[in-house]
Amino acid sequence: MRGEAGTVKRVAVIGAGTIGASWAAFFLSRGLEVVASDPSPGAPDLIRRMVEEAWPILARLGGRPDADPAAWRFEADPAAAVAGADFVQESAPERLPIKQELLSRIDAVLPADVVISSSTSGLLASRLSETCRHPERVLIGHPFNPPHLIPLVEVVGGAKGSPEAVAAAMAFYRSIGKHPIEIRKEVPGHLANRLQAALWREAVHLVAEGVASVADVDAAISEGPGLRWALMGPHTTFHLAGGEGGMEHFLHHLLPALESWWMDLGDPKVNAAVQQMLVEGVAEGTGGATPAELARRRDAALVRLLEARRSSG
Amino acid sequence: MRGEAGTVKRVAVIGAGTIGASWAAFFLSRGLEVVASDPSPGAPDLIRRMVEEAWPILARLGGRPDADPAAWRFEADPAAAVAGADFVQESAPERLPIKQELLSRIDAVLPADVVISSSTSGLLASRLSETCRHPERVLIGHPFNPPHLIPLVEVVGGAKGSPEAVAAAMAFYRSIGKHPIEIRKEVPGHLANRLQAALWREAVHLVAEGVASVADVDAAISEGPGLRWALMGPHTTFHLAGGEGGMEHFLHHLLPALESWWMDLGDPKVNAAVQQMLVEGVAEGTGGATPAELARRRDAALVRLLEARRSSG
Repeated sequence: MRGEAGTVKRVAVIGAGTIGASWAAFFLSRGLEVVASDPSPGAPDLIRRMVEEAWPILARLGGRPDADPAAWRFEADPAAAVAGADFVQESAPERLPIKQELLSRIDAVLPADVVISSSTSGLLASRLSETCRHPERVLIGHPFNPPHLIPLVEVVGGAKGSPEAVAAAMAFYRSIGKHPIEIRKEVPGHLANRLQAALWREAVHLVAEGVASVADVDAAISEGPGLRWALMGPHTTFHLAGGEGGMEHFLHHLLPALESWWMDLGDPKVNAAVQQMLVEGVAEGTGGATPAELARRRDAALVRLLEARRSSG
Repeated sequence: MRGEAGTVKRVAVIGAGTIGASWAAFFLSRGLEVVASDPSPGAPDLIRRMVEEAWPILARLGGRPDADPAAWRFEADPAAAVAGADFVQESAPERLPIKQELLSRIDAVLPADVVISSSTSGLLASRLSETCRHPERVLIGHPFNPPHLIPLVEVVGGAKGSPEAVAAAMAFYRSIGKHPIEIRKEVPGHLANRLQAALWREAVHLVAEGVASVADVDAAISEGPGLRWALMGPHTTFHLAGGEGGMEHFLHHLLPALESWWMDLGDPKVNAAVQQMLVEGVAEGTGGATPAELARRRDAALVRLLEARRSSG
């Protein structure tokens, strides 16, 4: 399977909306050639704008000095776009029939040693590959928004997926500076979205029960544990909370408290009244800035955080 | 109640272990006088070391130019330590009888307009203040580790607590550059620890079920949503996930997916086998570095993150 450093020179980006265009900019910055495909006539313009905007940032965040922002072209037909590709990243709309049709068309014309990786957040590889001739090389490589900035890629194969394809995808993502993680069993939501869902469930419960405002619940993360989670995950965080004895000491002394909190966590019903609390609370907390403006600020701040992490080693 | 900017000049730090010493260094950096008390003979040395180590960092992170790192003294007797204090931060060991005895001794000698704020993570203000003459001014001001770096302070009063005391504590913490949040109802674990517990429960479930390694579950946070949570909380994160339509669009289109993940979240039993998986997994993931070494690296990186956030505005 192609994936090890040096075996992938050209990536086909199939589906070039926000996610696909962001992937395209990232791949280009790592010195790869890109061929993109999308049914929308606006897609080439979106890629052009994304590459232009992201290029200075990507150069600072580990881009290759010899990378060429113009090393891409557009092919409306996905089967034509994948010709000669060494890796395929699919980011079509999140609807099973659309993705199945697209993946089986691509699968039919691609050599069997090329991985087809889907950006899907909500669908499982076993379903996506059902109509493929080579389901063993169809897997999920799920990025986080925005994909050109967030290092995480969740990699998981389907029931008929091959370990070699997963290993090749892991090697490929690692070789271009992503942080791939291997999910060993298909589960709904993969990993990070399940963890986000678990956190948000309690966040909604606390708002719904009137324990605190939306803004204060948000600050309970962004001014507290969120700062630590940008550096280490929940297990390592608790390892440090155990002091010299680490996780062992933590489990011995603090697990009973954690378990008592687990017992008390909420299971909110997100009815119309709760939805209104959330919508109004967010509007109040963000001072009426548009989501687009907030996203611009977040991405600018993300770049600084990532640079700060790089210089911390 | 004393708390508004300018009304607090001297803070009594009662209990000067790691948390108390960190508070002392922070208060000093904000130009306040500190009188510290602790039964341990090593306490003054711990404060001295903490102030010395943290001072250059605190100066960079918003410390006052005229602050004096030597503006503190030690009094073994807590009743003597609080004489003349405008605010009390108590960080004694997490045992109810110890804290109750200490708080009632302090309460007995302090003017009624001085807030007594406890750093407790696990006890409720209603219980802590049971033996006090003035329970209305006893509340919780729960910091996050390390308190001199993490902005969050969770403020919550007990059943007999007064809104004025809560408002005074909020104003005081805000005036020295902390980010206090107001918890309107006492709940076990306050806010941030409940949210951490919710996230960790699913993290443990994913490890226990063999879905991914400890290191990969950790990376699912620190290389993904954790980076965003250092900038904004879970509600605002999903507001942005809704695109131009914000939270309203998010609830309309993505709540069903979230609710389906909620249904699938785990409820792990942390038996001996799971505990072993966690202990071994963390050891493997951290490459055998000691918790102390990891904490040093984390704190150095935290300083860079906080600086990066400051310059992002």
